[in-house]
Amino acid sequence: MQTVSENRCFGGIQGVYSHASSACACDMTFGLFLPDTAQFGEVPLLWYLSGLTCTHENAMAKAGAQAWAAEEGIALVFPDTSPRGEGVANDEAYDLGQGAGFYVNATQNPWAPHFQMWDYVAEELPALLGANFAVDLERQSITGHSMGGHGALTLAMSLPGRFKSVSAFAPIANPTASDWGRKQLAAYLGADEGQWAAHDASILMQETGFDGPVLIDQGTEDQFLDLLKPEALSAAMAAKRQDGTFRMQKGYDHSYFFVSTFMEDHVAFHSNALYA
Amino acid sequence: MQTVSENRCFGGIQGVYSHASSACACDMTFGLFLPDTAQFGEVPLLWYLSGLTCTHENAMAKAGAQAWAAEEGIALVFPDTSPRGEGVANDEAYDLGQGAGFYVNATQNPWAPHFQMWDYVAEELPALLGANFAVDLERQSITGHSMGGHGALTLAMSLPGRFKSVSAFAPIANPTASDWGRKQLAAYLGADEGQWAAHDASILMQETGFDGPVLIDQGTEDQFLDLLKPEALSAAMAAKRQDGTFRMQKGYDHSYFFVSTFMEDHVAFHSNALYA
Repeated sequence: MQTVSENRCFGGIQGVYSHASSACACDMTFGLFLPDTAQFGEVPLLWYLSGLTCTHENAMAKAGAQAWAAEEGIALVFPDTSPRGEGVANDEAYDLGQGAGFYVNATQNPWAPHFQMWDYVAEELPALLGANFAVDLERQSITGHSMGGHGALTLAMSLPGRFKSVSAFAPIANPTASDWGRKQLAAYLGADEGQWAAHDASILMQETGFDGPVLIDQGTEDQFLDLLKPEALSAAMAAKRQDGTFRMQKGYDHSYFFVSTFMEDHVAFHSNALYA
Repeated sequence: MQTVSENRCFGGIQGVYSHASSACACDMTFGLFLPDTAQFGEVPLLWYLSGLTCTHENAMAKAGAQAWAAEEGIALVFPDTSPRGEGVANDEAYDLGQGAGFYVNATQNPWAPHFQMWDYVAEELPALLGANFAVDLERQSITGHSMGGHGALTLAMSLPGRFKSVSAFAPIANPTASDWGRKQLAAYLGADEGQWAAHDASILMQETGFDGPVLIDQGTEDQFLDLLKPEALSAAMAAKRQDGTFRMQKGYDHSYFFVSTFMEDHVAFHSNALYA
């Protein structure tokens, strides 16, 4: 593992690190914020999964999460959104290939050799963090934005006991039924739609739900509402009697101005679960 | 004036606008955050001047100021750092020309036709804001980062009565004595160093001071300490018995991770003065 940069930030350290990933078979880069309290012992860990076109850097620079994580004594990890590099398959579209891993293990070519983002985020990166930093893997929660909200919800519901709480900002909520999803799930997983259901938060919510609290924020002026399909997730949460809150936020769009506005609420929400 | 974008943010609106500037003889772009309370009447205005290589966008996206400005009911304006465009002179160096206006009125060619940033920030933009937005020009304060801290301090001390308070993050504090300054002041104002003193915060502090409170934050691990010369400003503030606070912040560097960490303090500091 290599240190790319470390900057003091809200009394802690905002680091960027790279490492050779065995899951993705390429070098991967991630951001990690450690609050001041991590000097004295292991701290809880909140995952932030980013959306289409993002790297490890977008949320780290623009979401304003460090202020609240420092206050609550929580570490933040910002993984990249896909494998990258010259030997890694790509597509000209912004929503397929590099920057658009969708947090799945691809089974189809040309994606399968590197696009193993589920294993990377679910297995490899947690182990790396636990081995190298003062983070307590018994106290993890997860959030994300857009494609990253999709990833957060599907990981949380598929790995029972792993995360104490899950939240999302404008998640891709029902990808098997929208063009942000059908295109990518077909490309990465193949034409058999039976393979897709494990990566659809609304289907997982109907079938499984989450064993802990859920918080979803969605802007009413989001330019991608037709692709996000929040109504499917909202209905599934209510039908499942899921412990959770779904908030439609009047006037907000899909940008980081929306994410940063509600970040304090999300960090406080996770802190309640992580320190329960 | 044209609306480039408007995003809801912390209950208010983060807008970006462009207009034909008479001072700079080109189109200029600025960001303006209006808190929710601006719907009901004029609100105080805090200027944020950015540093070398920045546009109107950097601080708007990365400084986290909107959270605190919303809480205090204060508008934020983020001007660009120079004129821009194909007809505008430029230099290959990152610290001269476009992105590096230094908040002066250039008298030398090729800069003089467009590089009139002092007039733009001191006269043209305030008038435009007052005419088009619910901002109270009787209640203005100013801050900035690096080159923008230089701009904030020199404008505040040179326009008595204009600003209620001034602060800066890692300002270029003594440009007549450093390579971030001598190079640009020579290029924009000519070889006569007598013309430079009006744009040196440490000299202005020695001679004039500021009729209100001053807050300066400077990181001890700033990679540009030799170019910023904080000791000159700190000494001048103490010698002048200036109402003010100069803080050396242990471990912080020159990045927006530093700026965002202390933004809450700066907005609260200005709010005290603006609502006094």
